Amino acid sequence: MSASSLPHAIVREVGLRDGLLSIKTIVPTAQKLEWISAAYAAGQKEIEVGSFVPVRLLPQLADTAELVAHAKTLPGLVASVLVPNFKGAERAIELDADAMLIPVSASAAHSAANVRKTPDEMIASIAQIRAARDAAGSKTFIEVGMSTAFGCTIQGDVSEDEVIRLLRAALDAGAERVGLADTVGYADPAQVRRLFEKAFRALGTQSDKLTCGHFHDTRGLALANTLAALDVGVRRFDASLAGIGGCPHAPGASGNAATEDTVFMLERMGYDTGIDLDQLLALRKQIAEWLKGEQLGGAIWRAGVPKSSARATPPMASFSQQAPIR
Amino acid sequence: MSASSLPHAIVREVGLRDGLLSIKTIVPTAQKLEWISAAYAAGQKEIEVGSFVPVRLLPQLADTAELVAHAKTLPGLVASVLVPNFKGAERAIELDADAMLIPVSASAAHSAANVRKTPDEMIASIAQIRAARDAAGSKTFIEVGMSTAFGCTIQGDVSEDEVIRLLRAALDAGAERVGLADTVGYADPAQVRRLFEKAFRALGTQSDKLTCGHFHDTRGLALANTLAALDVGVRRFDASLAGIGGCPHAPGASGNAATEDTVFMLERMGYDTGIDLDQLLALRKQIAEWLKGEQLGGAIWRAGVPKSSARATPPMASFSQQAPIR
Repeated sequence: MSASSLPHAIVREVGLRDGLLSIKTIVPTAQKLEWISAAYAAGQKEIEVGSFVPVRLLPQLADTAELVAHAKTLPGLVASVLVPNFKGAERAIELDADAMLIPVSASAAHSAANVRKTPDEMIASIAQIRAARDAAGSKTFIEVGMSTAFGCTIQGDVSEDEVIRLLRAALDAGAERVGLADTVGYADPAQVRRLFEKAFRALGTQSDKLTCGHFHDTRGLALANTLAALDVGVRRFDASLAGIGGCPHAPGASGNAATEDTVFMLERMGYDTGIDLDQLLALRKQIAEWLKGEQLGGAIWRAGVPKSSARATPPMASFSQQAPIR
Repeated sequence: MSASSLPHAIVREVGLRDGLLSIKTIVPTAQKLEWISAAYAAGQKEIEVGSFVPVRLLPQLADTAELVAHAKTLPGLVASVLVPNFKGAERAIELDADAMLIPVSASAAHSAANVRKTPDEMIASIAQIRAARDAAGSKTFIEVGMSTAFGCTIQGDVSEDEVIRLLRAALDAGAERVGLADTVGYADPAQVRRLFEKAFRALGTQSDKLTCGHFHDTRGLALANTLAALDVGVRRFDASLAGIGGCPHAPGASGNAATEDTVFMLERMGYDTGIDLDQLLALRKQIAEWLKGEQLGGAIWRAGVPKSSARATPPMASFSQQAPIR
């Protein structure tokens, strides 16, 4: 079976942004450039390279502009940046980033702690950003990541209806794509399936704009939740190489899904991610040297790729044929 | 919703056997007794307490007889022991263990390395053990764990047809229950679903005897594979507290599914495991002290139980209604 006949899945690298956010070691720009180039060479076609936030708040991400410029030299690479406010969006538009990701916390408490705004104030920002983007004739894609969609360390429960209301509002305000994020690692697979399915139904003709699952491994369920989302039709996942990641306002929430383990699972199940796992593991080794002393995650780097072949022919066997709703 | 109205799932503790096998620290019998009592108090009703193998080979498991005797004082606890041969089975019968687990490697290469027998010689042992058990009027239950069912570090691929042939042969030889084990951490969720479904179909009226999934986290997929098995109807899982485990003949295969993370996932999804996660985490803390310096696994012990409530009402939502085949 040729690669092109396999179903595709996208693993977006968020290690340079969500990952490094919780890493004390300041990674020099030269190393980040090398990371982006190597990830691209390994086949990663979507990379969140940084964030436009005040440098005094996040010195780790101060070189985002330079990273965007570098990413733009790599043909076909979609470089996204996180923009928590209008000012950040202006920078993204000005630098012609391929995409900007606006975080909207479904938890009001997390939203206040993270961006000092209510979720609805964030929705208003989206409309403002969309207007500015269109007025500038810019092509910078607007994506919204719905943070704490599965629960919040500050507030506890987050209402599913509120998540769906905000997803709709984000799209109405001009977001071109939305995703659900388990920012603090509270999600379980049943909840992931339920909320994504509920959201797909609620969004109706716009359901194709809900495309991304963002899971943290805080309680060990990142890959089980990835599988759950895959089962209901999600084909785009955020992940951090070496499983780095977290959120300063979500205690204990360290650890995005590890890119290498996510790619291994998807490829092994018969999905084409376009990513070369050996090259990815070589890059992980490099990054582990750069981040010496930091807590890293992921599992497959230790044991290596199996000696047995993947045997998913036909892809996903009978199971997926019942499950996906899109 | 009362606990009793929830679907049940069983997590069998195998840390004392499969787990300690790869741990250098010799755990004193007193600590093992405490472990068993505390696990029982936390609600674990099935515990693999040890193995009847030559003491010179596995000094770590030399006190199995004492552990079986202790387990028998705890009402309702099902204590199982691993028996790799007829001699071990005789001991299990003599000591009136509740159950004995006979490992049969589906990989001929692994079988040779692990027990110096072919898979079919192991099948012959089962028949011999069953005859001895019945002749003794013993009630010791006979279970077969099909090792390397998803691939082998020595041999590579393992044929699914061979796995199914051996499952059938094991039942024909007198095994009363069988399970599939990913001894070396090669399995992916698509493969897990495919092989279990294929086996359920092949076993026909005996499919209710295939009940157990045994997954290693070597490549990070233990919980995703647990979810995959759950989706196709498996309701019994092996796991090790603190994710200890491995196999001396399977390089790099350290790390069973962590009991605490498995219980968290199942309970969170709406399954009743009968296990109190807080008590389990307290025991994990104790064991981590006993095993100081050893590599432990698992994730939830670090971050703790979520502040948000589980919201799986009804259990498993719509998804599971499509999937389970039994």
